[in-house]
Amino acid sequence: MKARIKITLKNGVLDPQGKAIANALGALGFDGVGDVRQGKYIEVELHDTDRASAEQKLERMCEQLLANTVIENYSYELEGI
Amino acid sequence: MKARIKITLKNGVLDPQGKAIANALGALGFDGVGDVRQGKYIEVELHDTDRASAEQKLERMCEQLLANTVIENYSYELEGI
Repeated sequence: MKARIKITLKNGVLDPQGKAIANALGALGFDGVGDVRQGKYIEVELHDTDRASAEQKLERMCEQLLANTVIENYSYELEGI
Repeated sequence: MKARIKITLKNGVLDPQGKAIANALGALGFDGVGDVRQGKYIEVELHDTDRASAEQKLERMCEQLLANTVIENYSYELEGI
């Protein structure tokens, strides 16, 4: 099954990359653009067949490696079961 | 309204970052992990009130700045209307 993980900066954490995107959009002439935040998106192919154990595994992956939980939040969707 | 944009590498484009994540997951003892692909996730706050014009604007943003359409695909969701 496939997991789609989104990792985003927590509210209040400065996001210079997002600011740079917002500035660049402004320079390109896009108006009406407010806050921009950049995060990461990771697709993981899992060979598990049990949804519960896959979710547990994903939580551990995010906590241990994928997200820095001091400054980042994560969420995920599982599909294929 | 808020747009959530996902930018992913096209199939067939090598993804060394994804490979590094897969290897790191293996080294941490996670088994049953297949292919891993890393992409970008961008949240953009738009001040538009019309969904159609917001979608059009988002398409242009992705084509012109956010995604490299030679090697990347993009998709987005709009919420808040």
